[in-house]
Amino acid sequence: MADPSTCLPLTRDSVAAARVLIKPFVHRTPVVTSSSLSALASSPSAASDLTEEGKRKANPKLRLWFKCENLQKIGAFKARGAFHAIERLKREPGWLAGGGAERGVVTHSSGNHAQALSLAARTNGIPAYIVMPTISAPPKIAATKGYGANVVFSGSTSVEREAVTAKVIEETGARLVPPYDHPDIILGQGTLGLEFQEQVEASIAEENEKNGKTDTGKKRKGLDAIIAPCGGGGMLSGLALSCENTGIRVFGSEPLFQGADDAKRGYESGVRVEAVSTLTIADGLRTPVGHIPWSVIYERRLVAGFYSVSESEIKRALKLVYERLKLVVEPSSVVPLAVALYNEDFRALVEREAGEEGWDLGIVFSGGNVSLDALGKLFAEEES
Amino acid sequence: MADPSTCLPLTRDSVAAARVLIKPFVHRTPVVTSSSLSALASSPSAASDLTEEGKRKANPKLRLWFKCENLQKIGAFKARGAFHAIERLKREPGWLAGGGAERGVVTHSSGNHAQALSLAARTNGIPAYIVMPTISAPPKIAATKGYGANVVFSGSTSVEREAVTAKVIEETGARLVPPYDHPDIILGQGTLGLEFQEQVEASIAEENEKNGKTDTGKKRKGLDAIIAPCGGGGMLSGLALSCENTGIRVFGSEPLFQGADDAKRGYESGVRVEAVSTLTIADGLRTPVGHIPWSVIYERRLVAGFYSVSESEIKRALKLVYERLKLVVEPSSVVPLAVALYNEDFRALVEREAGEEGWDLGIVFSGGNVSLDALGKLFAEEES
Repeated sequence: MADPSTCLPLTRDSVAAARVLIKPFVHRTPVVTSSSLSALASSPSAASDLTEEGKRKANPKLRLWFKCENLQKIGAFKARGAFHAIERLKREPGWLAGGGAERGVVTHSSGNHAQALSLAARTNGIPAYIVMPTISAPPKIAATKGYGANVVFSGSTSVEREAVTAKVIEETGARLVPPYDHPDIILGQGTLGLEFQEQVEASIAEENEKNGKTDTGKKRKGLDAIIAPCGGGGMLSGLALSCENTGIRVFGSEPLFQGADDAKRGYESGVRVEAVSTLTIADGLRTPVGHIPWSVIYERRLVAGFYSVSESEIKRALKLVYERLKLVVEPSSVVPLAVALYNEDFRALVEREAGEEGWDLGIVFSGGNVSLDALGKLFAEEES
Repeated sequence: MADPSTCLPLTRDSVAAARVLIKPFVHRTPVVTSSSLSALASSPSAASDLTEEGKRKANPKLRLWFKCENLQKIGAFKARGAFHAIERLKREPGWLAGGGAERGVVTHSSGNHAQALSLAARTNGIPAYIVMPTISAPPKIAATKGYGANVVFSGSTSVEREAVTAKVIEETGARLVPPYDHPDIILGQGTLGLEFQEQVEASIAEENEKNGKTDTGKKRKGLDAIIAPCGGGGMLSGLALSCENTGIRVFGSEPLFQGADDAKRGYESGVRVEAVSTLTIADGLRTPVGHIPWSVIYERRLVAGFYSVSESEIKRALKLVYERLKLVVEPSSVVPLAVALYNEDFRALVEREAGEEGWDLGIVFSGGNVSLDALGKLFAEEES
């Protein structure tokens, strides 16, 4: 990881600079829409069964836009941050000259960040060491090795993983690239926000032209808001930076299960929650929000609020994405859509703020790396 | 169904005419590529385990292009034929004036054709009667009703279904729209072929320009061949018509299981196989090829040959599409990909004919309407 003292400031311009660096290495992922999902989100019947009887259900008008980071390299947005981290390292004074590229990079992760860092390192001919718990699922180990990384096994507690990581660093001189709590990672992930804004603006301009609305004063111009999943908060904080001073509101979304809504609780109480232990099916969102992401999300108030959903709401949204959009996404990806469809607080907010005009709401599909086995069991259980 | 005597001749021009009629109603579905799947198809290691030991495995060079009809309206190419059938009916002398639109249309189907006809009828304000076996899966019944159709139940043998259909026609005066054995349906399905050809030509022209290859004599121009699934043969024959006199070779693909390779057997023996009883997981391909499709496929030799694959090859290809392309497709959709990856006869043909240059091979993903329950069981079983 680049020494934080050499990092760019956490601003929208720095996200734009990150985008230039990683452009040759990552996909400009597509943005898709679905008239049936937008209609569902704009109908009160989509609201959760949990709403108390008798209470009027919110009826917001929502036009949904989906940013498909499930179609990103390695199947998740994490490729952006990893490529950016490596590009910044290459530019850190003395790192290359001092043999940094031979010593390599290291992280502890068994998820998308492991694969992203492995790919970014291999692309640059740099060795990558990935510390993974011995009990990791064999397909994840195989996938990481498939990207050419050296997998180093550890126990599964964070103390054990950190001890093994420290040992790798001592023995190899590799530089640590953490999954979210670093400016280079945050700025890299934020690049998806700049793309998303441009893509929706272009689509709406095209629509306006088709409908001859180029001269009306009230025409839509782009996204009104974006809602994204929040785990460690690297992507959410980068996204928030990409929207600073644009007028686009950014919201975070989390599972409710077993306290996985740590960022929401921290945001509302003013104190960051530093530990979480949850087995939510949205397995990318089991991590508490990190220190640097928190400074962007909460201290600078660049995120406008958090909303959470139940496990069954996540499953319903997941099923809709498979059935209506025909896209493979991981459960974490659909948490924002579940909020838009089923969270009455969020839906009431949109109705109140957006009125008749409604909102163009961006939804980030964070990744598509799902175990087909787990998915199979999930759907089999849902149908019965 | 339009009276066959009023139908357009089965030519490429008629497919182009069909395209004009249905353009306002159907999607121009995207074409996607995957460098990892093209690399896999271009490597001998992708070949099936079934090849006899010691025999050299074929090593063709294949650049794969996927036509995503899983993203078509109702989730399958069947929307094209159904909308075309209705548009042609509206133009049949006397049909509208004689109250045809009030009497409606009828078909017997429990699959994609049922939903396609229901949507096309509803879009035109025409009643649709869909005869389905009482034992049909409840989600299929619900989906068809969801498109506004009148579902009429029957027994599950073809004799019982046809008796109920005849009764509906007698009582309502509705016109029968069969799923594949009619010129209007064939011409409608064929429109996907014209789109596919244009889309790949445009992409290759863009690539050539980027690589400065605009002046070389040997530059690639478009698809060399297309391979598609074959059930009743409506789509395959329409696709073949769309390629007539273009130099693009068209191949059919089928499951091997329990004699589902009826078109292949018929093509090789010269006699159409008229009955099949198979429970292949590629459930859209359990039907024997129809009479009119056969005249295009075999008698006019517009299809260059058929290839078949095993159930396990279909499952392997299905898993690859979910994992690498992140697309939801139904098992029938991946039969052509399974041929390109695992059928040694097909692969040897490509190596022989295409040589060093290789082929740009189009693959039709026919649909994405899969029962998530069945899918779950399939993947759960595969992983264990």
